[in-house]
Amino acid sequence: MRDVAVIGIGITKFGELWERSFRDIGIEAGIKAIGDSGISGADIDALYIGNMSAGAFVNQEHVASLIADYVGLAQTSHVPATRIEAAGASGAVAFREAFLSIASGMHDIVVVGGAEKMTDIGDELANSVQAMAIDQEWETVFGATYASLHAMMARAHMERYGTTREQLAMVSVINHRHGALNPDAQFRREINIDTVLRSGMVADPLRVFDMCPLSDGAATVVLASADIAEKFTDKPVKIKGIGQASDTISLHDRRDITTMDATVYAAKRAYDMAGIKPEDVDFAEVYDSSTISEIMAIEDLGFFDKGKGGKAAEDEKIALGGEIPVNTSGGLKSRGHPVGATGVAQIVEIVKQLRGEADKRQVEGAKIGLAHAIGGTGGTAVVSILEAMR
Amino acid sequence: MRDVAVIGIGITKFGELWERSFRDIGIEAGIKAIGDSGISGADIDALYIGNMSAGAFVNQEHVASLIADYVGLAQTSHVPATRIEAAGASGAVAFREAFLSIASGMHDIVVVGGAEKMTDIGDELANSVQAMAIDQEWETVFGATYASLHAMMARAHMERYGTTREQLAMVSVINHRHGALNPDAQFRREINIDTVLRSGMVADPLRVFDMCPLSDGAATVVLASADIAEKFTDKPVKIKGIGQASDTISLHDRRDITTMDATVYAAKRAYDMAGIKPEDVDFAEVYDSSTISEIMAIEDLGFFDKGKGGKAAEDEKIALGGEIPVNTSGGLKSRGHPVGATGVAQIVEIVKQLRGEADKRQVEGAKIGLAHAIGGTGGTAVVSILEAMR
Repeated sequence: MRDVAVIGIGITKFGELWERSFRDIGIEAGIKAIGDSGISGADIDALYIGNMSAGAFVNQEHVASLIADYVGLAQTSHVPATRIEAAGASGAVAFREAFLSIASGMHDIVVVGGAEKMTDIGDELANSVQAMAIDQEWETVFGATYASLHAMMARAHMERYGTTREQLAMVSVINHRHGALNPDAQFRREINIDTVLRSGMVADPLRVFDMCPLSDGAATVVLASADIAEKFTDKPVKIKGIGQASDTISLHDRRDITTMDATVYAAKRAYDMAGIKPEDVDFAEVYDSSTISEIMAIEDLGFFDKGKGGKAAEDEKIALGGEIPVNTSGGLKSRGHPVGATGVAQIVEIVKQLRGEADKRQVEGAKIGLAHAIGGTGGTAVVSILEAMR
Repeated sequence: MRDVAVIGIGITKFGELWERSFRDIGIEAGIKAIGDSGISGADIDALYIGNMSAGAFVNQEHVASLIADYVGLAQTSHVPATRIEAAGASGAVAFREAFLSIASGMHDIVVVGGAEKMTDIGDELANSVQAMAIDQEWETVFGATYASLHAMMARAHMERYGTTREQLAMVSVINHRHGALNPDAQFRREINIDTVLRSGMVADPLRVFDMCPLSDGAATVVLASADIAEKFTDKPVKIKGIGQASDTISLHDRRDITTMDATVYAAKRAYDMAGIKPEDVDFAEVYDSSTISEIMAIEDLGFFDKGKGGKAAEDEKIALGGEIPVNTSGGLKSRGHPVGATGVAQIVEIVKQLRGEADKRQVEGAKIGLAHAIGGTGGTAVVSILEAMR
């Protein structure tokens, strides 16, 4: 396989962007990334789009064709344009497919966009769309929701490992602290443990501030074969390892609901490919759709022993300045979570850090970064490991 | 790039399968293909699923995770499971992504499934789902439908090239003749030109028998690196060329509505990769979502000069026994069109023909077959060229 590098990044502000359309934000992120990379439209060989549910959110499927058209590539170079859907991992899986298309030798320069417009329909309908990521016939029909399944994971984790309500809250506190430093984040104010504990109950023990928001937003990265990357940028970032894995779509079919095996397998594949161990990772963007989700992730990725994730949050080991800063972007909780965009937005943050362009949230001496995305409650996971090429 | 071969195929009956669920038909096709290929579940490295709109049809996104789970691969080998959406080309794009995953060296054996369950919701709602393949903001909102856009293409083709109403009808007559020989086809009775001309008007000049049906169905193929293919089958079929292209999603933005440029570019890429010319193709499965769609396809693929497709149908050059048999499966019109499954079902037919297993519809001396799928009205096209390895 050929080596592949990220040569450009672009992202919109995340939030409730009521004055912007799906295609509008997709184009903004795309144009920023193309500008950042120094390529021209004619250099682009293919386009990959991560998107969960434009069909339900904005009544539009076939969105890769739509984006190719509206960025002006459909009628000029007629690039292959491919849409990937894997719920919350859509952007991350699109990133992997783009990687494979270059690694194979089929393409040299490929653009990967992730986009979602979630706030044009009401909250209730948006929640029912999100529920399409879990098993409709064996979960949703019986009243399970995305949040209630996370609550079950939280309860089990608390019971088995002694994880505390306050430790869960600290995940949110740290992510808000980071997000306050990110100009593109949806929520930019710091909170404290009381903010979380006094917020409305969603699904016991999880409260509003334990859960990520609904968001609009888009992110784009430009990939190139590593051997030509330095023609376009003096700060190429190599994709050192990438792993994807599946697990049962239903939570009740898992062997253990305090571990996401999809994360464990995806991470093993990525570490093996990169030839590194968890302790070699300097910082990470992980999937904090809920606070318990982040705690399980930092354990399943091997950063902390199983059951020690809560304590790691309490001790601020995952905060900027800590042992392994996690979600310096603010994560899903504070940066926001436009579902299909998240996996690509994570790569944008990793690349900013590796380039030394993360400003007030810069991780000192960042050499190796890891991105981790989840679909549903863990039916899909993708882990990507990136390293500055120089 | 490594060479890739098809080593197994499986397909369900297509039709209104009201007693079967989405996951049920997906599993049937998958198990048939795995059985046909001689692999075991543990041999499978990855799963790709082509599906347009399970979100709208059966309220379920994240369907690659769902299928991986229900075929028993999620909890055992935790295979990467990736869903592709490109409207009517979903299955074909999934086939190309699976090809790339093996060509790159990442995987050795990959399963590609296509599935759609369209008839559980009413016809009117199903038509509005299909309309999500075209531009919602600039076509659907102004009253354009999938059929009416095809009617505009037909009118323009008739006006410019003298294509007749009867020639359009002959496409349907031939596809029904072929489909009558295919036990898995949705409609298995022969029709004549009068059947078409007397059927109800859909969008002038196109009538019910000019348009493909709504269908349920699934199809699966198993791909392997060519160097190991003969360990599993004595009839491997090589993927000799594969090309994908985009065009504007809106019909009104095209330079010419009597040609689908996406087909022209996808075909050029596939022919170049295969090192062949259109005249080297022995038979083809093309995208006849309407009769005009097939006429444009056989021209845009280079089988006949632009404007001569209608005459080729009239002269039965595309019928079994003709110059280049097209849609021996019955095509979308007679075999049926479960949107996400179609691109994979086309590959199943090509492989059956190349293996000499197409029974009464066998093309004599079939050596090279071509599959052609379209998303929307031509916003996406994929062309795949296959050849028997021995």
